[in-house]
Amino acid sequence: MIAAMARVSTPAPGSVGIVETQHLDLPTPIRLDCGRELTQVRVAYETYGTLSPARDNVILVCHALSGDAHAAGYATTPPAQSTRDGFGAEDRDGAAGRGLGWWDGMIGPGKAFDTDRYFVVSTNLLGGCRGTTGPSSIDPSTGRPYGSTFPVITVADMVRTQRAFLDALGIDRLAAVAGGSLGGMQAFEWAVLYPDQVDAIVAIASTHALGPQGVAWNAIARESIMRDPAWQGGHYYGTGRAPDAGMGVARMVGHITYLSAPALATKFGRRLQHVAPASGAPQRSLRSEERTLDAGTQRTDIRYTITEPEFEVENYLRHQAASFVQRFDANTYLYLSRALTYFDLAREHGDGSLTRALEKVMARTLLIAFSSDWLYPPSDSQEIAEALRALGKPVEFHVIDAPYGHDCFLLEEARQTPIVRRFLAEGRA
Amino acid sequence: MIAAMARVSTPAPGSVGIVETQHLDLPTPIRLDCGRELTQVRVAYETYGTLSPARDNVILVCHALSGDAHAAGYATTPPAQSTRDGFGAEDRDGAAGRGLGWWDGMIGPGKAFDTDRYFVVSTNLLGGCRGTTGPSSIDPSTGRPYGSTFPVITVADMVRTQRAFLDALGIDRLAAVAGGSLGGMQAFEWAVLYPDQVDAIVAIASTHALGPQGVAWNAIARESIMRDPAWQGGHYYGTGRAPDAGMGVARMVGHITYLSAPALATKFGRRLQHVAPASGAPQRSLRSEERTLDAGTQRTDIRYTITEPEFEVENYLRHQAASFVQRFDANTYLYLSRALTYFDLAREHGDGSLTRALEKVMARTLLIAFSSDWLYPPSDSQEIAEALRALGKPVEFHVIDAPYGHDCFLLEEARQTPIVRRFLAEGRA
Repeated sequence: MIAAMARVSTPAPGSVGIVETQHLDLPTPIRLDCGRELTQVRVAYETYGTLSPARDNVILVCHALSGDAHAAGYATTPPAQSTRDGFGAEDRDGAAGRGLGWWDGMIGPGKAFDTDRYFVVSTNLLGGCRGTTGPSSIDPSTGRPYGSTFPVITVADMVRTQRAFLDALGIDRLAAVAGGSLGGMQAFEWAVLYPDQVDAIVAIASTHALGPQGVAWNAIARESIMRDPAWQGGHYYGTGRAPDAGMGVARMVGHITYLSAPALATKFGRRLQHVAPASGAPQRSLRSEERTLDAGTQRTDIRYTITEPEFEVENYLRHQAASFVQRFDANTYLYLSRALTYFDLAREHGDGSLTRALEKVMARTLLIAFSSDWLYPPSDSQEIAEALRALGKPVEFHVIDAPYGHDCFLLEEARQTPIVRRFLAEGRA
Repeated sequence: MIAAMARVSTPAPGSVGIVETQHLDLPTPIRLDCGRELTQVRVAYETYGTLSPARDNVILVCHALSGDAHAAGYATTPPAQSTRDGFGAEDRDGAAGRGLGWWDGMIGPGKAFDTDRYFVVSTNLLGGCRGTTGPSSIDPSTGRPYGSTFPVITVADMVRTQRAFLDALGIDRLAAVAGGSLGGMQAFEWAVLYPDQVDAIVAIASTHALGPQGVAWNAIARESIMRDPAWQGGHYYGTGRAPDAGMGVARMVGHITYLSAPALATKFGRRLQHVAPASGAPQRSLRSEERTLDAGTQRTDIRYTITEPEFEVENYLRHQAASFVQRFDANTYLYLSRALTYFDLAREHGDGSLTRALEKVMARTLLIAFSSDWLYPPSDSQEIAEALRALGKPVEFHVIDAPYGHDCFLLEEARQTPIVRRFLAEGRA
């Protein structure tokens, strides 16, 4: 079964090299929190490194809202059900190059998740749109895409699916489960659902329950998608229309919440842009644009149309939105946004008490948060650290002072690396 | 001409009583920053108190993005071009009662802007949708609504229109110009454009230039409107369709930015709501909603549909959106959002230097900011205070420690009142 893992060829130094996403069909249905069962579940995955004979060196990496199985190395072929190549999680805006995994800076030989030592497994999560069964998949009972008849899923459902997938690979125990944001939620869920099967968890820029402002931003993003008439109640597949307009706005909201205000100020300030829209930005042709500068204009800093982007940040947002809708499914966005909003360790496992929810945890815990992350603030990780300490459980908590907001978990690789490496090494001592 | 002012009858203590919005047609065109002229401009306005024989007790009150001329007292009739009665500015969510002016807590006998002493004038600003000429008005040159052929306007254009309106009323000087948010921007613009005609300005929760995050939020709100197919390039009047879906999302974004994260936490937390949607919330009937709780549900805290609001804050946002689209024009939102985003005192008047921009100011300045306002943060007001002090100009700056975010300027009336009263009294000493 392990033969199904990704082929890795001639890696460059520090890189796992060329990788290809694999697929595995689960042999049994997944029983969901909602009471329904999902049959014929397929999981897209990649692996990096070599499984030890004792099968005791497995690290499961979990992705965030907009990520996929392609966490490291270079992809040569686009993943299934995707129209673009695989750049990954929140706000990895392509600077790292097309085809590079979303956490390539953290996974590879000598990196934080060291593939010279560990066998790193990354799956596209349940409900995804990059190869794992989700709302854009065919419902075997109807022969048509699920659309909004896909069952509402939870983070626990994602973790049960990962468990079933690892069973199929013949992997019983995990040396670690790691992830940022929604990925960190999955790590927590692993430690609670399968306490005796996880040695350690690494939860970065994550939380035990999204704060009310995050709940609201996610609700607004979902509203934007569902209010787009092209959403068609979730059944847009095969109609030639998709809720790209609403998805674009959802992505814009996401982008701004992932960045800190100072990072925005540094990156864009209030700079105006009077250049042609970046390639990929929507090219609009509206009557109102035609009445550009009248003769006699007094202020030369203003472009006198209502529809064209004027500030650099506007153009950037349009470009990001246009790029995102090419590679991501709107229904997946809805389902994953809903799942991460619902995630609430205390409510789910502790009758409202975070401490009680964490009682069963046996894994060592590493928490990393970023000073400028206002969506998943350090105080959320602090609460988890305190609850674990109150229970006498081993926990390490770091706040990294960095300006890029929630995006730091994808950008601050250099400073996370020694923390993660030391934490994992201590587990082997 | 003064006979045209609003009638005030039998006021309750502290109230200016029943008021009615009046309208005045400007005798001459308004020359705009973009070089175009607007002809046949109508201004909606209200006045409270009595004009002194010397005409030296006039305070002009300027409203924010979603406000109107109805700043104080009770309205009995809906204003022109509006489908709802007049509750006013940002996030006055109706708690104060229908028909009450948006700044009623600040304007009236014995209040901050004391109508026993001052003649308070409030106009709906240029580009508005509540009686003053804006994109929903008829273009006299075509006989059809302007739509997106309405010229792009600036805060300076709004102020020039107010100047022309006051000329028509026979009012030369202002004892003060006051406003919050976009209203404060108008106050600054008055002090720079007409320095010898303004004795004092009161700018609350405002800025000399919106920060990059505010620029982005406003851009996203406009995108949401313009991406709604019902917007139709801005020419939706008379088509039976309006971009209510996009406007609703724009309003939701606004709401969250006007509130602080702690205020959201206090008001909603992560509370789930399993009650019927509030009246006014959109009643959806989607197939996916019908597949509610299957038998065998394991978690009872989740409603297993993707479309229904689950958290209290979601339902609140839907209600606010539904209410807003009933009373506000989407094109006005676009034009005013654009104007307040462009506003940049240093760029406009000082070649990039705020100090140089403020050199001409002769008015005494009162600045009030709120500790939890992250959209118009106290640091913005601080910069203005420092620039004025560097110029040796009289300025008073207060930061009020209050938790409600930008909304404080509408809510923290009790603490603003003594500050404003003392400031205005000192001007008479």
